[in-house]
Amino acid sequence: MQGETSETGKIVTFGEVLMRLSPSDNRKLLQANHLDFFFGGTEMNVAASLAHMGVEVEHVTNVSNDIVGEAAVATLRKYGIGISAVKKVNFPLGLYFLEVGSAMRSSQVAYNRLNSSFANIDPQQVDWEKILEKCSLLHWSGISPGVSEGAYETLKAGLERAGQKGVMVTADPAYRSNLWKYGRSSREILSGLIALSTIFIGGVNEINELLETEYTSDEAGFIAASKALLKKFPKITKVFDKVRTSVDASWQKVYGRAWNGNAFLSTSQLEITSVVDRIGTGDAFAAGLLYGLQHFNEQEALNFANAACALKHTHMGDVNLVSVEEIQEVAQGKTDGRIKR
Amino acid sequence: MQGETSETGKIVTFGEVLMRLSPSDNRKLLQANHLDFFFGGTEMNVAASLAHMGVEVEHVTNVSNDIVGEAAVATLRKYGIGISAVKKVNFPLGLYFLEVGSAMRSSQVAYNRLNSSFANIDPQQVDWEKILEKCSLLHWSGISPGVSEGAYETLKAGLERAGQKGVMVTADPAYRSNLWKYGRSSREILSGLIALSTIFIGGVNEINELLETEYTSDEAGFIAASKALLKKFPKITKVFDKVRTSVDASWQKVYGRAWNGNAFLSTSQLEITSVVDRIGTGDAFAAGLLYGLQHFNEQEALNFANAACALKHTHMGDVNLVSVEEIQEVAQGKTDGRIKR
Amino acid sequence: MQGETSETGKIVTFGEVLMRLSPSDNRKLLQANHLDFFFGGTEMNVAASLAHMGVEVEHVTNVSNDIVGEAAVATLRKYGIGISAVKKVNFPLGLYFLEVGSAMRSSQVAYNRLNSSFANIDPQQVDWEKILEKCSLLHWSGISPGVSEGAYETLKAGLERAGQKGVMVTADPAYRSNLWKYGRSSREILSGLIALSTIFIGGVNEINELLETEYTSDEAGFIAASKALLKKFPKITKVFDKVRTSVDASWQKVYGRAWNGNAFLSTSQLEITSVVDRIGTGDAFAAGLLYGLQHFNEQEALNFANAACALKHTHMGDVNLVSVEEIQEVAQGKTDGRIKR
Amino acid sequence: MQGETSETGKIVTFGEVLMRLSPSDNRKLLQANHLDFFFGGTEMNVAASLAHMGVEVEHVTNVSNDIVGEAAVATLRKYGIGISAVKKVNFPLGLYFLEVGSAMRSSQVAYNRLNSSFANIDPQQVDWEKILEKCSLLHWSGISPGVSEGAYETLKAGLERAGQKGVMVTADPAYRSNLWKYGRSSREILSGLIALSTIFIGGVNEINELLETEYTSDEAGFIAASKALLKKFPKITKVFDKVRTSVDASWQKVYGRAWNGNAFLSTSQLEITSVVDRIGTGDAFAAGLLYGLQHFNEQEALNFANAACALKHTHMGDVNLVSVEEIQEVAQGKTDGRIKR
Amino acid sequence: MQGETSETGKIVTFGEVLMRLSPSDNRKLLQANHLDFFFGGTEMNVAASLAHMGVEVEHVTNVSNDIVGEAAVATLRKYGIGISAVKKVNFPLGLYFLEVGSAMRSSQVAYNRLNSSFANIDPQQVDWEKILEKCSLLHWSGISPGVSEGAYETLKAGLERAGQKGVMVTADPAYRSNLWKYGRSSREILSGLIALSTIFIGGVNEINELLETEYTSDEAGFIAASKALLKKFPKITKVFDKVRTSVDASWQKVYGRAWNGNAFLSTSQLEITSVVDRIGTGDAFAAGLLYGLQHFNEQEALNFANAACALKHTHMGDVNLVSVEEIQEVAQGKTDGRIKR
Amino acid sequence: MQGETSETGKIVTFGEVLMRLSPSDNRKLLQANHLDFFFGGTEMNVAASLAHMGVEVEHVTNVSNDIVGEAAVATLRKYGIGISAVKKVNFPLGLYFLEVGSAMRSSQVAYNRLNSSFANIDPQQVDWEKILEKCSLLHWSGISPGVSEGAYETLKAGLERAGQKGVMVTADPAYRSNLWKYGRSSREILSGLIALSTIFIGGVNEINELLETEYTSDEAGFIAASKALLKKFPKITKVFDKVRTSVDASWQKVYGRAWNGNAFLSTSQLEITSVVDRIGTGDAFAAGLLYGLQHFNEQEALNFANAACALKHTHMGDVNLVSVEEIQEVAQGKTDGRIKR
Repeated sequence: MQGETSETGKIVTFGEVLMRLSPSDNRKLLQANHLDFFFGGTEMNVAASLAHMGVEVEHVTNVSNDIVGEAAVATLRKYGIGISAVKKVNFPLGLYFLEVGSAMRSSQVAYNRLNSSFANIDPQQVDWEKILEKCSLLHWSGISPGVSEGAYETLKAGLERAGQKGVMVTADPAYRSNLWKYGRSSREILSGLIALSTIFIGGVNEINELLETEYTSDEAGFIAASKALLKKFPKITKVFDKVRTSVDASWQKVYGRAWNGNAFLSTSQLEITSVVDRIGTGDAFAAGLLYGLQHFNEQEALNFANAACALKHTHMGDVNLVSVEEIQEVAQGKTDGRIKR
Repeated sequence: MQGETSETGKIVTFGEVLMRLSPSDNRKLLQANHLDFFFGGTEMNVAASLAHMGVEVEHVTNVSNDIVGEAAVATLRKYGIGISAVKKVNFPLGLYFLEVGSAMRSSQVAYNRLNSSFANIDPQQVDWEKILEKCSLLHWSGISPGVSEGAYETLKAGLERAGQKGVMVTADPAYRSNLWKYGRSSREILSGLIALSTIFIGGVNEINELLETEYTSDEAGFIAASKALLKKFPKITKVFDKVRTSVDASWQKVYGRAWNGNAFLSTSQLEITSVVDRIGTGDAFAAGLLYGLQHFNEQEALNFANAACALKHTHMGDVNLVSVEEIQEVAQGKTDGRIKR
Repeated sequence: MQGETSETGKIVTFGEVLMRLSPSDNRKLLQANHLDFFFGGTEMNVAASLAHMGVEVEHVTNVSNDIVGEAAVATLRKYGIGISAVKKVNFPLGLYFLEVGSAMRSSQVAYNRLNSSFANIDPQQVDWEKILEKCSLLHWSGISPGVSEGAYETLKAGLERAGQKGVMVTADPAYRSNLWKYGRSSREILSGLIALSTIFIGGVNEINELLETEYTSDEAGFIAASKALLKKFPKITKVFDKVRTSVDASWQKVYGRAWNGNAFLSTSQLEITSVVDRIGTGDAFAAGLLYGLQHFNEQEALNFANAACALKHTHMGDVNLVSVEEIQEVAQGKTDGRIKR
Repeated sequence: MQGETSETGKIVTFGEVLMRLSPSDNRKLLQANHLDFFFGGTEMNVAASLAHMGVEVEHVTNVSNDIVGEAAVATLRKYGIGISAVKKVNFPLGLYFLEVGSAMRSSQVAYNRLNSSFANIDPQQVDWEKILEKCSLLHWSGISPGVSEGAYETLKAGLERAGQKGVMVTADPAYRSNLWKYGRSSREILSGLIALSTIFIGGVNEINELLETEYTSDEAGFIAASKALLKKFPKITKVFDKVRTSVDASWQKVYGRAWNGNAFLSTSQLEITSVVDRIGTGDAFAAGLLYGLQHFNEQEALNFANAACALKHTHMGDVNLVSVEEIQEVAQGKTDGRIKR
Repeated sequence: MQGETSETGKIVTFGEVLMRLSPSDNRKLLQANHLDFFFGGTEMNVAASLAHMGVEVEHVTNVSNDIVGEAAVATLRKYGIGISAVKKVNFPLGLYFLEVGSAMRSSQVAYNRLNSSFANIDPQQVDWEKILEKCSLLHWSGISPGVSEGAYETLKAGLERAGQKGVMVTADPAYRSNLWKYGRSSREILSGLIALSTIFIGGVNEINELLETEYTSDEAGFIAASKALLKKFPKITKVFDKVRTSVDASWQKVYGRAWNGNAFLSTSQLEITSVVDRIGTGDAFAAGLLYGLQHFNEQEALNFANAACALKHTHMGDVNLVSVEEIQEVAQGKTDGRIKR
Repeated sequence: MQGETSETGKIVTFGEVLMRLSPSDNRKLLQANHLDFFFGGTEMNVAASLAHMGVEVEHVTNVSNDIVGEAAVATLRKYGIGISAVKKVNFPLGLYFLEVGSAMRSSQVAYNRLNSSFANIDPQQVDWEKILEKCSLLHWSGISPGVSEGAYETLKAGLERAGQKGVMVTADPAYRSNLWKYGRSSREILSGLIALSTIFIGGVNEINELLETEYTSDEAGFIAASKALLKKFPKITKVFDKVRTSVDASWQKVYGRAWNGNAFLSTSQLEITSVVDRIGTGDAFAAGLLYGLQHFNEQEALNFANAACALKHTHMGDVNLVSVEEIQEVAQGKTDGRIKR
């Protein structure tokens, strides 16, 4: 009943743990008098999904030194994530309020994270040397360096150390315009971090943003953009992309595609006709991909990642909590959802 | 942080405030042991939607002089509706039970309103002269005159006074067969009230009901019916109609159309693939229309009204609580429901 | 306000009453801290649906002699089911946990029933002679004989006595692979019980399972399979089948078909675009069929059964709690789900 | 698993079934957005408590012909109350809102019952002759004749018929000042009804109210008042009284006393230090008394009634749902509340 | 149905609106998955209590320009508080998490307010001249100047303007050690603000803190401390104090006392044996006092304030929502909590 | 952020993990439609409390191989309990239903555990040699050997191995009459297991049960009984006892006493006037004691244990989740429960 012992070692993730607070039943906040809450955050979601699938994972972060931080740590433990690199500091945990949309109504988010325990992290607080022992892969996203200078510097220190130790680095360069308030150029910083990474999880939009290009989002455009990315960042060897069609907030379609340096791969499209929770679906893709690359060939890994992404839409919370078996079934085409007794 | 000061003055609405009591999760009442509740009522819904968009509104009604009436008034205040014309009387607040349908199962309503605080209103209780000061528009619906003789007489007094003061009058002549128990002909009474109104919010069914005609519900039929209506009621200058296609209780399509005395206008159709709450969607249309006519040209106003109607389907409660910006986006065609961070 | 007095007498059902425990809001059990519960069980669901439609029904079972059994009996009474043949014994009530799926995610069930109060039933505990007095029909399913030897023996005794008394017997030979742990062949036992029955509620899969045949599931296959069944079991005179297309866990299509010994009948297909609860929909079909055969001709009965099945998808719980009028409307084609005021 | 077959026959109760709607957690209604609900009413509470203890009971009332009435009837069935004398009529079910007090804050009630389905009952709707067949006791309270003229007339007809048939009559002459709106003197009417009754469940206040006397509430006063009552109403043979000391809304003390025509009886005082629900505690006393008088001697019956009253304070709802064994234990002095495993 | 028009004008309050988030049922945060929420804050609580009693009140604050701020403003409106001096700014609303204690377990609070919308207020944002028009009284507490330099400066500007306009000022100099992080001496700042005030709501602890004295908390000590305070701050004319005895978190006793410059006054002690919510009880005292001083003599006002304080313990939330009548009853000694029908 | 590394090594516990299912709000099960659930069990509660205080703990048990077992393991992880000795087997997790009592009403329990995953444990499934590595203490209770022969044999094997390795053994010989169904004498078996233990957590009742003596429960009786126990079981060196006075289900008093072989120790009594949850309070005492004996002297440890026991009554669930600091405060006499900001 423990995480599988990978020959290649554990996975390490770095990023903020946020508390998410939502009215239930698609209510507006002003109609509610209670809020459901979940702990999540893009890299923690990846960690939790991996741990739930049995992978050994360690998450690096700061939480608040109060009852909220206590609950956050308990949740990390619950998911099976290693917490030896979690520090408690005297700043509040970051959080956000989410009004859940429906049909053509968008979900709305209100953040309270710019003075959080994670935003106040700095490189002196993190012993990367020790954390990266027996580590096979370090995963990061573009959210963290956008939160604060300290978060950026801490992440950079980790990526550099990973490079020195030969640890693989996966980058999910998500760009969020509501971050990056501390006065640095997101393009410049993300470019520097991607230069230290080995696998790129993103698509044409992210590449265009980074390279200031205008590739189209069709297959040809994706291949061309990927090639340009690999040329600019020679350490990057592969590009994995999740393509989403948003019919509306309650109805989504997703498929995966990849450029592995030599060939284009893609999956069939999965359709979620009644979305339960949209949050964390990209992280489910990333976690499925990392799991898949450890266990399957690239095409199977991509199928697995896409199925994981689709299944995350079907239950509450930021973390993908279905089993490897459930993901495999959907990856292999069983999507009729019949009851399992 | 106050209602916008319209040059043309506030909007006044008249009608019953009902408490709606519903089992959650599509339960039948006999399966439930608690009920969600909302305060609503067709004209109050219009008032609340307008107030939420920043319009100054005053609602005229009676509520019960007890803890239920206290909560009803607190709700009016919460929405920003003016309450100086709300009276507390020694009759219970009207209410109804709603079992929420799904797919081919209809929602079911059980009313308890015929001896309510509003049903016991009479013209002596309402100082229309004072209420209509600095008022630009008085809105009514066909529900109110169906509740009781007193409600009818009170409304008629208001419409007459509005006419004398040159206040515009919008009529939503909704006909409900389960009302009209006090022995008067609904056609006769509604005709009299529409004769005092300037804008008609309704369609072919309502016109056929009033004129005892049999116009078809296609575009030509709508135009012909509208012309006939304007001929019969020369004070009416425009007809605005919301056209609904009910795939089933969970899947609805709506578009708007209008006859402005000279030309036919219509909107594209909006599709709600996963209805959260069907109640109050017509009132959202009316409120959107009134707001739109104050701020935009007629075509834009119709688009805005239709988007408001669609968006009301996507959250709980009788009142449309999305923002002007959200409605504008949908009115302009952005219906993919992507998360707003 | 009592069950209708049928000339032909009451209906008797036999089977386990299970407590179902589910996290709400499509949560995984490990995310939840409370569970909704319902009492159900395939034959009890049939009984409850029939009682809700006004039919006199008696249910034969064992429940636990504790607060859970007390609540189960209260629920039977609430639905109007006769409880004079319910015994309290010192074993726990059977139960199961259900995680409710969505889109391509299947619902998952975890049972705790193999040592239950019902599993410990034996023929000495049931006075079939008395129970079958003034009884017109005895209904059973293939679940019960799979639970335990005692349940099988008790059922067999009932069917034999029914045969002696000329009571009609309806069989729903549902096969569940997770039962049948007590060392008997399901095919052999079910064949023996079907030989004692007069109406078969099942389709090609069930017939193939019983006859070790491989009929196809199209119309021709269904007719051929039905004929083979009637040949093998001469007491069986009719076959009624519910055909389900599972788009995904949230979107289902159903229609009914039948072979009445002479002719093939079928209904139009009903589509449930937003499933509220999938459990008990087959039982709703069976109950609708039994009610329909008592009140309508065969085609109408089949339409009624199919509408009942569809409507069960639209509310919570194991039991179909819509009214005869609601079922009739849908059976006659009104599926737009408009609000009933 | 059926009501015990009393030699002396079933108990019949007559009165309104009310829906009670309460915010949870001691909230004020204006703070809540959902309400817990229970069906109750003083005589129905007596019926339900008796049925829960295994006594055969029939309740006579009108309910609404809608989803609320359907749920009310399902609740009566759930408790095991006979419903053959329940009629569905086209008036809404009576209801009330309850804000639950705490410490020195009183609970507050807002009624909506004066135009209810029960208020519209009349003697033509009730076939007392049939209902009182095989009946040993008819129970009524002073609430019912206060609701409406029709309710009074119907009750009177029942009491007269009971007298003719030699059926015992128990009277709980609760006086509620917020009723009696239909223009009759409560004293006059209640006196007439008590003259038709055999057992009086009430105390000095009720007697003073009826006789226009001023007896004190101590033991001597109670005895004197009881004697005066028996003198005025010779059919009455016994007086049973529940004496409550209200420390505050959350802390209550109760004991019972009686005058049996010859002797004074009393119980020890029971203390409820943390009241869960105050409603229905008097009805629990009445039901406990009726059960006790059928099964025990007078002193034991009084102890049993007092324990039943105390225990009703310890769980939610209008009805006493503890078991005969639990009541007996408390009646015999075990009040330490230790866990039963 | 509007706030009473005081001859002396409205009351103005200044302070932070906080969102309070609590697990229900005395859970620890790490056990919960949803949180109840309330908007409160010491001065807003005073404002809301006063508005609920019918007093015209205006609250001065900043809220966040997002869905949380929208809900906060809706709540202010709901309580009837004037919002024309509420600004929306681009900082998150302050909030805190509360684990509700019980018996000897203390409630625990975790704040997230130091970078809030209110902490970022500054004097330029508040037009005190306009706000204090037609104002009779300005109320402040020691919380606000502890939050930030800007909050302190804004408050000081208001108090100075009030002094110039002859507006009475009530001071509740609550000292919170977890505030005052911006580098100023709390004693110095509070002294400066109290010098601008006319009524002091506090006791021996607060006076000792301010004057660096060591008065005892008995009657003599209170009188001596009050005299010393009036000597040091000659503008202060009266001292009102609430004395609490905390048996444990669930059981509290309170009484009021005062020094009016000439005489000592005190109330009887009220006992809350089962506390529902401890938060806001001091604010209920302050609001009761302000209401009382406007309507009654000083002794009655003190009784009223103490009863308001006691009653706030009996319902959920930060705001006292009982009626003037309920407070009066308790102030006059009716504390038995009997149901009001 | 990891368990403290004790020089003396981790603590190991052995016992069943049960799911507890309770209606909220003191409802009877038959009134509820949802149940709160917690995972607990006497030895797991000790483990969780210790882990929450930072002690390294490993729990030995079997859980079900389904979604319930998955949630149970997630809960163990959440509390920080080591799970390397938890096995998943194909039997359902044990569970019980709890109706929560109040005042003189006892809580009631209905178990479903006799065929559980834990009851089916056997010595072959547990590698005690490995589990007891680096272990300083093994804790057991009398519940486990009562569940099944396999549980007894497994425990005995562990105790014997602990003896061989010099690991301390603490025994909480709780006797439950509803267990011990597998045909062995509880006295004989418990005696054999206590003979293998070093510390006894129990009182006069438990000693009398074991020794078939009749010591009184006063101080002298406790000392005499303890001496007799130490004489009979020479390996036992100390006796720690929790003495409970049950005013009623909502009001409890507890104090601790001990015989350490030489001297009698006792604590002051703590009073819980409003019990939130009675379950697990004995386990909180045991965990507090084990923690105390590791960190403090015996008197302080006893005070700490008693405070832990008292504080467990003040929050929901089976596990004591307050902090070491909170326990210390109460142990040192601060019981006024004032809010901590």
